[in-house]
Amino acid sequence: MSDASNIPADHPRAASLRTRERMKDAVRDGLVHPTGLIAHGRGEAFDYLLGEKTPPEALEAITEAARLLKSARQPVLSLNGNVVALAAEACVEVAKAHPKLRLEVNLFHRTPERVSKLVSTMRAAGAKDVLGEKPDFRIPGLTSDRAQCSKAGIGEADVVLVPLEDGDRCQALKAMGKTVITIDLNPLSRTARAADVTIVDELTRALPLLTKALRASPGKAKKYDNHDVLQRVKARMAGLLTE
Amino acid sequence: MSDASNIPADHPRAASLRTRERMKDAVRDGLVHPTGLIAHGRGEAFDYLLGEKTPPEALEAITEAARLLKSARQPVLSLNGNVVALAAEACVEVAKAHPKLRLEVNLFHRTPERVSKLVSTMRAAGAKDVLGEKPDFRIPGLTSDRAQCSKAGIGEADVVLVPLEDGDRCQALKAMGKTVITIDLNPLSRTARAADVTIVDELTRALPLLTKALRASPGKAKKYDNHDVLQRVKARMAGLLTE
Repeated sequence: MSDASNIPADHPRAASLRTRERMKDAVRDGLVHPTGLIAHGRGEAFDYLLGEKTPPEALEAITEAARLLKSARQPVLSLNGNVVALAAEACVEVAKAHPKLRLEVNLFHRTPERVSKLVSTMRAAGAKDVLGEKPDFRIPGLTSDRAQCSKAGIGEADVVLVPLEDGDRCQALKAMGKTVITIDLNPLSRTARAADVTIVDELTRALPLLTKALRASPGKAKKYDNHDVLQRVKARMAGLLTE
Repeated sequence: MSDASNIPADHPRAASLRTRERMKDAVRDGLVHPTGLIAHGRGEAFDYLLGEKTPPEALEAITEAARLLKSARQPVLSLNGNVVALAAEACVEVAKAHPKLRLEVNLFHRTPERVSKLVSTMRAAGAKDVLGEKPDFRIPGLTSDRAQCSKAGIGEADVVLVPLEDGDRCQALKAMGKTVITIDLNPLSRTARAADVTIVDELTRALPLLTKALRASPGKAKKYDNHDVLQRVKARMAGLLTE
């Protein structure tokens, strides 16, 4: 049973506490690895530093991400436990906006049971086709089960969107020559720094904006500099920290 | 069984991953509420912004905290699940350095079972006397079980050290007229802002420094301004964020 009903309605951060309870329930249900809660907390902290609002720098990154995904030969959206728990429906909407894009459940703490549960959750949310249950490819340079993925998905993808990704894996995908897009609230993370495009925003705010950008007619390609985007978002956070 | 043995030794943040596994095991063992993992993650994020080092501002706060605890009529160290899981022994050392100080297990998500487990863990770590199992007092102004505490502990304390505290409860303790000292990595949190003395540092780094300060002969009291300390530590984090 959820503790959500025990959250005092008068608590100043009741909404945030309810999301926390949802994540906790996802752990109980075997969708999220317990350490996924710690990752969620890190995200919360950086979101405070954004004032819990999408910064203009994230909008720039989303525009570039949509351009890259639309021009990709084989784009893939990689899903982990936190992504599915927080945003299963929003991921389905991204896939609907870009029929070529494939969804793949791909986990750091992989167990066949957890992969199956996440695939089922995605199907229940409306996903037609979700890869991940039959890994037949390994990401080179990674030890342990976290290297496993699907050849038809991440294996053959040229552009991968990997929200909330581990830094090691992000770097390994880059080393394979893939174009990597991430959504990560921490602009200092190895993932944020290694990716080609880093959307520094909270997942459930960013995904609907990405869907909208995928549906929009592509504007003229603009020069995009991820390092510069990250520098500006860090300066924004620093400003909010000291205001 | 712990997943700690599955952490690749070649992972650049293996030490941090092992602490995470320890916290996860503490949830499994019923010591830490699952949402305590989210709080741990928030702390990790702010610790990145300290470069994972004790800042000079924390040393100033620790000196003032030791002075207040030593001059207190009835000082109390309030323990929650995260505090015990991360630093049971270090809390025992604080108590040994200040025999007047009482330890009390006091929880936001209170269940009698979790209180008992935490008291047992503290005893196993060497604590002689730990309050909390028989709550006979309520912190005024709080709804739900989180108001419960011990009269002989937090109820009658004039100075309370509440590491990793909820903002609501910190404000309620202040409203009771108590002097509140906290250890909190987030200088923006309501707890950090409401407390009289905020030690912005990671718990396991800060507690041994506090023990040392309690054992040292008291120097001359210096003017202490918590708002100023917080402003300076925020500026330090902003500097590290943008460097």
